[in-house]
Amino acid sequence: MDKERFAKQLAFILEADKEKEIYRQTHLTGYKRQENDAEHAWHMALMIYLLKEYANEEFDVAKAMVMALIHDIVEIDAGDTYAYDAEALASQAEREEKAAKRIFGLLPDEQKEEMLALFNEFEQNETPEAKFAHAIDNFQPLILNDANNGGDWLAHNVKKSQVIKRQQKSELGSKEIWAYTKKLIDKNVENGYITNDDE
Amino acid sequence: MDKERFAKQLAFILEADKEKEIYRQTHLTGYKRQENDAEHAWHMALMIYLLKEYANEEFDVAKAMVMALIHDIVEIDAGDTYAYDAEALASQAEREEKAAKRIFGLLPDEQKEEMLALFNEFEQNETPEAKFAHAIDNFQPLILNDANNGGDWLAHNVKKSQVIKRQQKSELGSKEIWAYTKKLIDKNVENGYITNDDE
Repeated sequence: MDKERFAKQLAFILEADKEKEIYRQTHLTGYKRQENDAEHAWHMALMIYLLKEYANEEFDVAKAMVMALIHDIVEIDAGDTYAYDAEALASQAEREEKAAKRIFGLLPDEQKEEMLALFNEFEQNETPEAKFAHAIDNFQPLILNDANNGGDWLAHNVKKSQVIKRQQKSELGSKEIWAYTKKLIDKNVENGYITNDDE
Repeated sequence: MDKERFAKQLAFILEADKEKEIYRQTHLTGYKRQENDAEHAWHMALMIYLLKEYANEEFDVAKAMVMALIHDIVEIDAGDTYAYDAEALASQAEREEKAAKRIFGLLPDEQKEEMLALFNEFEQNETPEAKFAHAIDNFQPLILNDANNGGDWLAHNVKKSQVIKRQQKSELGSKEIWAYTKKLIDKNVENGYITNDDE
């Protein structure tokens, strides 16, 4: 064991622990409290594995799971950016890029490069792994919110066009999950949990 | 998409959400609060990937990561069993087996069988994947506790022989992590965070 290398790996692993204190807007089922990034990433990795049959294309499941595990680590520095906060969204990429360099920079060089590449691949959303991981990144909070009778949508007065805009890239990763998503959105509009702003 | 199949998968995924409310004895770094099972599983899967070079044997990394993601789901029914609670440990296997049948039983049959097999393989600790996953299952709370100046050991008056007994199976998965673990235990004994009960 190369002690210096192991010390770098442990420094990153302990820094990553802080992801457990970054809270998202989404609430756990039962609406008891907000979910944190580590819980979201765990749920997402599990869902990628269990729902892999619905991906549009063949993909490397392990790679997509690691992508899920690390995709929000930048929020330790950059904070959670709510999907419907336009102002925060404008500065998100710059804040997250800086954070990625610092946090993945704790790792030994080749692992830093590997994690940065995976993070950027996820962000660019062009490969089969990134596209399916994104579909699940969208779908996970959607089903929690649906189970909570739209609590988060109601709290933020979210409109149908906003939910569609956020969710529609799921189609790139999974046409089947996107078709199900549209039905779930319609159901929540009908129930009054999402504001209907159709023309 | 087979609607009935998808409904079963979603039922399991929503049930798994409850793992975020099962709290362990281990505290997050900074000792702010106890860690929950979902956070632990996330951290463990990430560590399996980043520390895979230290495994004694070649192993299937994706399989070990899925094992990590699901290994504590049974605690939704069976509760967390503290590693140093002898009474609870005695009934743990029976409680967890029953829980595994109910919770994984929510999935479509072949996924239920796959998850039950993975869960049992982890418990039996005989394959390279199970052995390395176990080493990381031990190592993850160890480094958090070390970072917290032994807070959890002090709170429970834990003795050196108990820590050794719990951690020593790590050697089956990683001789290198076990060697590091022994040094970390000795350091914490020297600092008075673990009670020295050597003869």
